[in-house]
Amino acid sequence: MRKYISPRGSMELMSQFEVKRLKHSASSELYQLFRRCSLAVLCAGLQSDSDESLFSLHQDFDIHVIQQARGVKLELVNPPAKAFVDGKIIAGTQELLFSVLRDIVYLSNKYDNIKNLDLNKPFHITNVVFDILRNAHVIAKRHSPNIVICWGGHSIKQHEYLYTKDVGYQMGLRGLDICTGCGPGAMKGPMKGAAIGHAKQRNYQARYIGLTEPSIIASEPPNQIVNELVILPDIEKRLEAFIRLGHGVVIFPGGAGTAEELLYLLGILLAPKNKNNPMPVVLTGPKESADYFTEIDKFIGRTLGAEAQSKYKIVIDNPKEVAQLMAKGMAEIKQYRRSTGDSYHFAWELHIDGQFQQPFNPNHKNVSELLLDFNMEKSELAANLRRAFSAVVAGNVKGETIQLIKEHGPFHINGDKKLMAMMDKLLSAFVVQGRMKLPGSKYIPCYQVNK
Amino acid sequence: MRKYISPRGSMELMSQFEVKRLKHSASSELYQLFRRCSLAVLCAGLQSDSDESLFSLHQDFDIHVIQQARGVKLELVNPPAKAFVDGKIIAGTQELLFSVLRDIVYLSNKYDNIKNLDLNKPFHITNVVFDILRNAHVIAKRHSPNIVICWGGHSIKQHEYLYTKDVGYQMGLRGLDICTGCGPGAMKGPMKGAAIGHAKQRNYQARYIGLTEPSIIASEPPNQIVNELVILPDIEKRLEAFIRLGHGVVIFPGGAGTAEELLYLLGILLAPKNKNNPMPVVLTGPKESADYFTEIDKFIGRTLGAEAQSKYKIVIDNPKEVAQLMAKGMAEIKQYRRSTGDSYHFAWELHIDGQFQQPFNPNHKNVSELLLDFNMEKSELAANLRRAFSAVVAGNVKGETIQLIKEHGPFHINGDKKLMAMMDKLLSAFVVQGRMKLPGSKYIPCYQVNK
Amino acid sequence: MRKYISPRGSMELMSQFEVKRLKHSASSELYQLFRRCSLAVLCAGLQSDSDESLFSLHQDFDIHVIQQARGVKLELVNPPAKAFVDGKIIAGTQELLFSVLRDIVYLSNKYDNIKNLDLNKPFHITNVVFDILRNAHVIAKRHSPNIVICWGGHSIKQHEYLYTKDVGYQMGLRGLDICTGCGPGAMKGPMKGAAIGHAKQRNYQARYIGLTEPSIIASEPPNQIVNELVILPDIEKRLEAFIRLGHGVVIFPGGAGTAEELLYLLGILLAPKNKNNPMPVVLTGPKESADYFTEIDKFIGRTLGAEAQSKYKIVIDNPKEVAQLMAKGMAEIKQYRRSTGDSYHFAWELHIDGQFQQPFNPNHKNVSELLLDFNMEKSELAANLRRAFSAVVAGNVKGETIQLIKEHGPFHINGDKKLMAMMDKLLSAFVVQGRMKLPGSKYIPCYQVNK
Amino acid sequence: MRKYISPRGSMELMSQFEVKRLKHSASSELYQLFRRCSLAVLCAGLQSDSDESLFSLHQDFDIHVIQQARGVKLELVNPPAKAFVDGKIIAGTQELLFSVLRDIVYLSNKYDNIKNLDLNKPFHITNVVFDILRNAHVIAKRHSPNIVICWGGHSIKQHEYLYTKDVGYQMGLRGLDICTGCGPGAMKGPMKGAAIGHAKQRNYQARYIGLTEPSIIASEPPNQIVNELVILPDIEKRLEAFIRLGHGVVIFPGGAGTAEELLYLLGILLAPKNKNNPMPVVLTGPKESADYFTEIDKFIGRTLGAEAQSKYKIVIDNPKEVAQLMAKGMAEIKQYRRSTGDSYHFAWELHIDGQFQQPFNPNHKNVSELLLDFNMEKSELAANLRRAFSAVVAGNVKGETIQLIKEHGPFHINGDKKLMAMMDKLLSAFVVQGRMKLPGSKYIPCYQVNK
Repeated sequence: MRKYISPRGSMELMSQFEVKRLKHSASSELYQLFRRCSLAVLCAGLQSDSDESLFSLHQDFDIHVIQQARGVKLELVNPPAKAFVDGKIIAGTQELLFSVLRDIVYLSNKYDNIKNLDLNKPFHITNVVFDILRNAHVIAKRHSPNIVICWGGHSIKQHEYLYTKDVGYQMGLRGLDICTGCGPGAMKGPMKGAAIGHAKQRNYQARYIGLTEPSIIASEPPNQIVNELVILPDIEKRLEAFIRLGHGVVIFPGGAGTAEELLYLLGILLAPKNKNNPMPVVLTGPKESADYFTEIDKFIGRTLGAEAQSKYKIVIDNPKEVAQLMAKGMAEIKQYRRSTGDSYHFAWELHIDGQFQQPFNPNHKNVSELLLDFNMEKSELAANLRRAFSAVVAGNVKGETIQLIKEHGPFHINGDKKLMAMMDKLLSAFVVQGRMKLPGSKYIPCYQVNK
Repeated sequence: MRKYISPRGSMELMSQFEVKRLKHSASSELYQLFRRCSLAVLCAGLQSDSDESLFSLHQDFDIHVIQQARGVKLELVNPPAKAFVDGKIIAGTQELLFSVLRDIVYLSNKYDNIKNLDLNKPFHITNVVFDILRNAHVIAKRHSPNIVICWGGHSIKQHEYLYTKDVGYQMGLRGLDICTGCGPGAMKGPMKGAAIGHAKQRNYQARYIGLTEPSIIASEPPNQIVNELVILPDIEKRLEAFIRLGHGVVIFPGGAGTAEELLYLLGILLAPKNKNNPMPVVLTGPKESADYFTEIDKFIGRTLGAEAQSKYKIVIDNPKEVAQLMAKGMAEIKQYRRSTGDSYHFAWELHIDGQFQQPFNPNHKNVSELLLDFNMEKSELAANLRRAFSAVVAGNVKGETIQLIKEHGPFHINGDKKLMAMMDKLLSAFVVQGRMKLPGSKYIPCYQVNK
Repeated sequence: MRKYISPRGSMELMSQFEVKRLKHSASSELYQLFRRCSLAVLCAGLQSDSDESLFSLHQDFDIHVIQQARGVKLELVNPPAKAFVDGKIIAGTQELLFSVLRDIVYLSNKYDNIKNLDLNKPFHITNVVFDILRNAHVIAKRHSPNIVICWGGHSIKQHEYLYTKDVGYQMGLRGLDICTGCGPGAMKGPMKGAAIGHAKQRNYQARYIGLTEPSIIASEPPNQIVNELVILPDIEKRLEAFIRLGHGVVIFPGGAGTAEELLYLLGILLAPKNKNNPMPVVLTGPKESADYFTEIDKFIGRTLGAEAQSKYKIVIDNPKEVAQLMAKGMAEIKQYRRSTGDSYHFAWELHIDGQFQQPFNPNHKNVSELLLDFNMEKSELAANLRRAFSAVVAGNVKGETIQLIKEHGPFHINGDKKLMAMMDKLLSAFVVQGRMKLPGSKYIPCYQVNK
Repeated sequence: MRKYISPRGSMELMSQFEVKRLKHSASSELYQLFRRCSLAVLCAGLQSDSDESLFSLHQDFDIHVIQQARGVKLELVNPPAKAFVDGKIIAGTQELLFSVLRDIVYLSNKYDNIKNLDLNKPFHITNVVFDILRNAHVIAKRHSPNIVICWGGHSIKQHEYLYTKDVGYQMGLRGLDICTGCGPGAMKGPMKGAAIGHAKQRNYQARYIGLTEPSIIASEPPNQIVNELVILPDIEKRLEAFIRLGHGVVIFPGGAGTAEELLYLLGILLAPKNKNNPMPVVLTGPKESADYFTEIDKFIGRTLGAEAQSKYKIVIDNPKEVAQLMAKGMAEIKQYRRSTGDSYHFAWELHIDGQFQQPFNPNHKNVSELLLDFNMEKSELAANLRRAFSAVVAGNVKGETIQLIKEHGPFHINGDKKLMAMMDKLLSAFVVQGRMKLPGSKYIPCYQVNK
């Protein structure tokens, strides 16, 4: 079965250079990347946390770019039926497909290629992140600050999911836009809730931003409410994109990925240069989640200290308060940035240390050598803890890392005994609570904490 | 507490004539109508089926029109808190408020006032209905047929409600707009479902049309998803508006009101002049509702005959099929109207007999004198059955009629014995199934069927 | 030759009532009015000041309204070729045609027909004027004051015409919209100039408003730059529309019509109730026109006095100053109306005396009985002078009045000797300067001033 | 005097990289380029054909980019007063300023910098041209072909100017967009005329595209009607942009520049690969210009032959026919490109030989060595003739080349005697007819044809 898809949203115009590059033999890496991301988007809504099933199910799927008189078209060979209604592609999916095309073309085109770009320099990395977001039209000119980052697990319980919807609804009523990492659970709930809030406020320009990266898009395919999708090249640039694009952060219950994100955030907010930079951060869940957050809070207190704890507020079972805290935070950010001259749409002045920007490759050697010690500087400890959790996430959901684990056994995490005990406890809790994997499969840890 | 509300949507411009008329002493009938309808809109989302609670709860509510340099404003005195978010009115509510203003002003202005208008003539009535809808900008120029009327109970069970959402979702995915009578239950579910379908299809112009009338708006306040609200002067003009504006009809489980609507519809479709006029009608519900529809179908078969039964299709537990039937019907209507030259946006050629247009006043005398007999012409029988059910609805939810029942006891419905037995059975089933009233109160019948 | 024209701009939706009314036998007065106004619009750009030529040239022209599936269409039989480009109607003409349809339908529908309307009451007349303008969507919600009325002759010299363009250009650069009476000369120049100014300011919503009436539209057909056309029922309502809709007035050289307009304006501004109402009025022309304005100014001084003279400013050969005076006046009006609560888009509070509102029928009896005397109250004298000039205009260009003159000879204007001498001098100057008629025909006066 | 200008149109978002680059010391080449192009835009409408006067008049002008909370701003120090109305910048100028910023930033950023780009390869050059136009949003997605290139002299007579307006008007009436090289005369007339045509057709999206390059922008500043301005890096890329972006070409009387353009065009159309590629080309002027075109036609006939002559049509004194030929050509292009799959918005398939793409540096050595001989291949001869005329243009208006001439005397053009005689005759005719320079200065030839 072949389907021809016209552009929608972005990337109607390609140079012959660009078309050529994507046409290269099916064995080319770029083409494979394009095919995989497109397939992920066509499977939007799929409940899965492994990309294996996705790819094995659709081995006969293929995609080609075609130049035509009125512009570019996509030819889909054997696309998943779910993406179509009575034979016509769903417009949201169509839009996301062209977002993929746009980002793949842009990324392929640029960064390897530019002579005076030095990806070891923080300032250069930040400019690259800006450039990608700008090219995706995600940086909104002249808007006042209103983007809330929602982080949390992809595998959460029903009452937690309903709670994320409630929070989203209250934020939608207050004109706040939602930005998440795509995928199900806490990444989808706030968007669905906000959609109703925005509809009641007749906000037809509401933004549902999804930031993803090639290695994660297949295990967490964007839902079709996402109306602005960006594929960043790696996890670290994606995290930087979140934190410079967004204005406030709401963290719902989640597993290793959520812990990674929280540690990243705190590591940055703890930098002395960011001391005055306002960013509202709220950890929240229904009343059943109170214990969960007590645990997290304790872990943060003991590892990063009271200053880190002061950077966030825990709100239990009160969606309205969460939304009000965010709305209040937006006003402060507006005032602050006006006073410093920093832009509303991209937090140039936020300091992000190089150790949070350099890609961390989660292999056995790198993980086992991570320094994890109470005596380190707080932000350095945060950076390494972040890397440890990042490795666990990769071992859970990224095809390549899963393969590594299959071959060499679980990662070994080493460090201070007391610290290790705390980490093990936290990770075990995630396992017990079913936060590591979607229900239906037994979780086999990809890590071992050496106490 | 006083709030000042700027216009949104319609009716920013009023003549001094119009302002004056609404300023008239608080005792004026027009002002009271305006106040009541506005209050109903401000209570959107309220779960209630009696207007009493609404009005007794907000006795100190008041509303005034104010002329200002930039146009008109509304002053609200002691409005319900629920209509506001952090002190600001919800935009959807704001829009609906000005729809009320628009229709009240327009109705007040026109029909009593026009010399050569004769409301006994069907053609004149139809032109009045058109005129009101046009003034409300509800008649969409140049659109292809795509409006689905959804009828069904305001008091339905949770699984039925979820089913109406599913049907709405499938219709949204197919670009169909929803028109209902406002209020909760089967009037709200399809809109909520369609909203998600429309969002996935990036349909930002989706229409959620609510048609109501002054005596019912308070017991079935429009939800805030409704983005086009029209207040017709009476139940008969509202029914005519439904049937000339909409292109297809989906009927969910409901009580006396739903029966009234079905009988009205069949009475008109049975008219020989409408024989070729295509209008897809589907009765549908989840599998638990199969029996319900069997009952209804039997009643129709025995009273109005097989021809009437041929006018609708019953679909059980298949939202996708319902949506596909509607989509298919739209294509047929388009072709039919193009061939006859009838307009897409208002079914001028549909014949509606005077007996379906003349307002029926539900009082004891009129009800008891209704002729209900198997020997009557089918469309006449449909018309009288419609009136009987209409009286039951009025006795259930309209303040004025409830008062009548309080004073004089239940309405007496008389007629052919076998027919009366069937009616009683149907009405009793509605009572048992809890379709007459929202849960929480015991239903005391406002009628007595004399067998 | 038959052409079918789809709607553009307004009036796509007609009720069958309305269609029926226009279909009435070709002999019906309403149909004839519709045909004549439509023909005038189709001849846009024609240089003529008599409707005779227009109508005799196009005797075989016919127009019909047709109901179709997608809405209304117009069928044109033998339309003037000039309105088409390569067989397709010019979009501007198409738009104006449907403006005509809209106003004809609306007017026909309403005022004869409304029971409680009393056209002898000033307040009622003002509401009618508002209602017509609102229905034509000419009353702009929420805009700040920026409409400049441009009055002046249809028959002016080339250097005068270029000057009106220059003034228009300077006004366009300052965001001012133009409103004129349609037709060539001083009614067209400012629009063309403003179009360039607006283009340079990227003002794509610039408004070129034309206010006309059935008896004048044929002799002064709207040019196609006019993008908002309204047909008022008579000259007095048209004048009221000008003065309530517009915010400032620029008067270029002209003949009897321009004098009529100036006298109307001064008569109203002299009313004590309007003392504080700011309205910038500028009389302006190139340096060659200096004498012309000296004459007018003298006439005003001697008839209406110094107070009347204080209501306007004469600016010679300085387009930039004219535009700056208007822009400055707009700011004052904004402030004034905000302080009084009067609306920006319609000057409700401006007092217009009944003698300026009641239609004046220019026949021999009425003209000869006009009281013209220095001893009268100034505003009454202004009103009667206005009527006298109005009669001259009618005798020059309106078919019906031209017929009267043919039958009964010129109008006789009587009054105070000195006053009569002044009037005669002024009118003679108009004749000598060629301001009464377009070049190419000898002017035979339709009046006689009895000194 | 300092003015702060907010973005309009494009380029609101700059990375800190980009801001930094433009902030570099005032002596930087990039900054100087930015300053000069901005100044040219601020002088829009200036009648001049030398950039000297411009720059000497505004030596104290300066421009800086400023980052602010809501985005970027421009600070202008001592800008020309003409660009402001009552102290506010004209919106069109504001838009063009940011177009300059956009292109300067983009050009600076890209082509020197990209590793695998080889500007000796035709395909690479074409992709660069596409990329610049796409970045400027000038490549219109999904539009049907409708862009007419208008070439002709900047110094033309009044009756010729009025004729270019008439042609523009007729093209505007037919929905054709105009693309020129900016500046006065034949580059401005068609835009002004089209503006009226577009207004009558209510075409509010009409495009007035200006393609320029850094060395010519100051001597031919864009008029403010231009609503899409692109600065290409050199004359050859600008010519390629014209011919791939535009769909038809109208050539008005002009001087050396116009001859250069015509020769470029014919050289390309003569390539065998372009044989079937439809492109309507019309040479046109008022009846007084008939002789001018006879001369040109003869020159083409004798140098490039009858085939070259068959590529264009000469139309004298018939604006309507010119517009109709263009409109007809558009339909053919549409059909042709649909059949070949070439895009509507950029003629990828048009073959442009490398000799037309490589920048020609007009210095004494290069000019004197140009091979000009009847025995050459036609397209090669066209290429060299093009270069010879290009050198004359540069010697007339480009600062750098004027300096060269001052130092080393006129360029020497050598070649076949008969050919040289013809060239001399043509160039002398341009001088006599005043087409080399704007009136007011005596023209001293910058060339010498060696016969």
